[in-house]
Amino acid sequence: MSIRIGIMGYGNIGKGVEMAVSQNKDMEVVAIFTRRNPKTMKGNHPFVSVDEMDKYTDRIDVMMLCGGSATDLPEQGPRAAALFNTVDSFDTHARIPEYFEAMDKAAVEAGHLSLISGGWDPGLFSMMRVLAQAVLPQGSDATFWGPGVSQGHSDAIRRIPGVKDARQYTMPVETAVQAAREGRAQGLTTRQKHTRVCYVVAEEGADCQAIQEAIVTMPNYFADYDTTVHFVDEATLQREHQGIPHGGFVIRNGVSAADTPQTVEFSLKLGSNPEFTSSVLVACARAVYRLRGQGRTGAQTMLDLPIGLLSPLSDQQLRARMV
Amino acid sequence: MSIRIGIMGYGNIGKGVEMAVSQNKDMEVVAIFTRRNPKTMKGNHPFVSVDEMDKYTDRIDVMMLCGGSATDLPEQGPRAAALFNTVDSFDTHARIPEYFEAMDKAAVEAGHLSLISGGWDPGLFSMMRVLAQAVLPQGSDATFWGPGVSQGHSDAIRRIPGVKDARQYTMPVETAVQAAREGRAQGLTTRQKHTRVCYVVAEEGADCQAIQEAIVTMPNYFADYDTTVHFVDEATLQREHQGIPHGGFVIRNGVSAADTPQTVEFSLKLGSNPEFTSSVLVACARAVYRLRGQGRTGAQTMLDLPIGLLSPLSDQQLRARMV
Repeated sequence: MSIRIGIMGYGNIGKGVEMAVSQNKDMEVVAIFTRRNPKTMKGNHPFVSVDEMDKYTDRIDVMMLCGGSATDLPEQGPRAAALFNTVDSFDTHARIPEYFEAMDKAAVEAGHLSLISGGWDPGLFSMMRVLAQAVLPQGSDATFWGPGVSQGHSDAIRRIPGVKDARQYTMPVETAVQAAREGRAQGLTTRQKHTRVCYVVAEEGADCQAIQEAIVTMPNYFADYDTTVHFVDEATLQREHQGIPHGGFVIRNGVSAADTPQTVEFSLKLGSNPEFTSSVLVACARAVYRLRGQGRTGAQTMLDLPIGLLSPLSDQQLRARMV
Repeated sequence: MSIRIGIMGYGNIGKGVEMAVSQNKDMEVVAIFTRRNPKTMKGNHPFVSVDEMDKYTDRIDVMMLCGGSATDLPEQGPRAAALFNTVDSFDTHARIPEYFEAMDKAAVEAGHLSLISGGWDPGLFSMMRVLAQAVLPQGSDATFWGPGVSQGHSDAIRRIPGVKDARQYTMPVETAVQAAREGRAQGLTTRQKHTRVCYVVAEEGADCQAIQEAIVTMPNYFADYDTTVHFVDEATLQREHQGIPHGGFVIRNGVSAADTPQTVEFSLKLGSNPEFTSSVLVACARAVYRLRGQGRTGAQTMLDLPIGLLSPLSDQQLRARMV
């Protein structure tokens, strides 16, 4: 029997989840829930108004919450957890404890299981930080992001007068990555570990010098970073910068008790950030389905998931082929 | 209260476990069990004859089985699992299902929990293979080992007439690692992915040409590999080749459903193979202690462990700081 998946929200992540489910034979998409008029939506699966989601409680095993962390999930999450087992990618790191409590309460009361903060950071990177620290308690670790597109920074550039379109890449500083591998990255700030590279299409007649100045001095976003601005024409931006690549590194350098250096490194190189995030969420849905079957309820993070439960293979198959 | 650790066997892994426990404030070594005469052993913890281990059942929370996979563990493991919760590093991949069954039976009957095949391969690498395949079901992965010392291959060289001492390194082929990152490593065999480099001290007057020929043509060990032999003097071998470094890579290159390339990579660079393996085993002991406290019994692998249980931090601390 397939794991019956519902998708709430049909942006990049919702579409990514729909695609990722198609790569997994043990699951199927039952319906996609939207705040838009379902009659205007076209695709391979039924669209349903979010207002009707309570009619689907016995038709869906796991509801994928594909909204944003700023406003969608804090409101939608607990409501959905009262009706379904859920998986989401809540990624406002500082507010995870608070969101966890709200989801845990709703899920425990309803007898559901909710996996929060799935994806790669938070998610896989969280797992790697915890794993590496547990194994090497004496040491230091560093997380680097990129090369990758930052949607928020791209948007900030687009708001500058005279800018028609823009794309911003966050780049890890190679010497800092190397320092982390050798245990010399302590004290380096996020700003020292990353640079920002901007591709900007200026409107006709715009003052490129002024745009560049506005970017590199923009507080919070760029002022404290080493920022490079390239002006390109619209065709170039369309051709070379339409993907949403991302990735990064978690590196821990530690010593075992005899002072022997040991380094653990995990890295991702992603052609599409939302598609990969969605692939992780779909694997999490399988684990949620199984853990709920074992009687588990409440909220969980990926730190609570045995890795074997993410795989479609049985325990026996895993031990025979993969251990 | 500390987690009370027993160590059975005092070779490289047993010594490594003793050292690794000293880096973790929530555990302590209670006793080291040996087949040798305990009166001849000196160290910081009490030595006890293995014949007396049944007197320690209520003084030890987790017994670390530090013997070898070929003969020690198949015999010792089930006997120990009848008396204690256990952790071991059983690493004969092909025999894991059979060993698992024996350990599961003994542990279930006695109401204990036994973690088998801990370490980095099997262990962390197993986790990464399963994780990467679950997230990227369409794709291929490759595991590389090294640069690292192979004890078995070093021993094989030492048995050649005229060889006084030797050290053999397994090296990943850089072009094959790169191919794996780009999804072009399908079909490459272990032999195509690795080379072997040997440092040999010849006895005085020995025929180096004959030794070199004996090495590079040795069936199973070297004949099918690209093997390089360096003759060095004894002082050089002592000075430059006394460590037991190792490491390796697990790389999965896959595509999400829109055919977008995605790459996951995990790597280790280890100054000491046994010390790192021991560090992993000690983190596993913490998880075993906690899972047993939750009522779990039987045999497990690292695929059954939620990563959060490996950490000394509480769930709340992990969510606040590490997710």
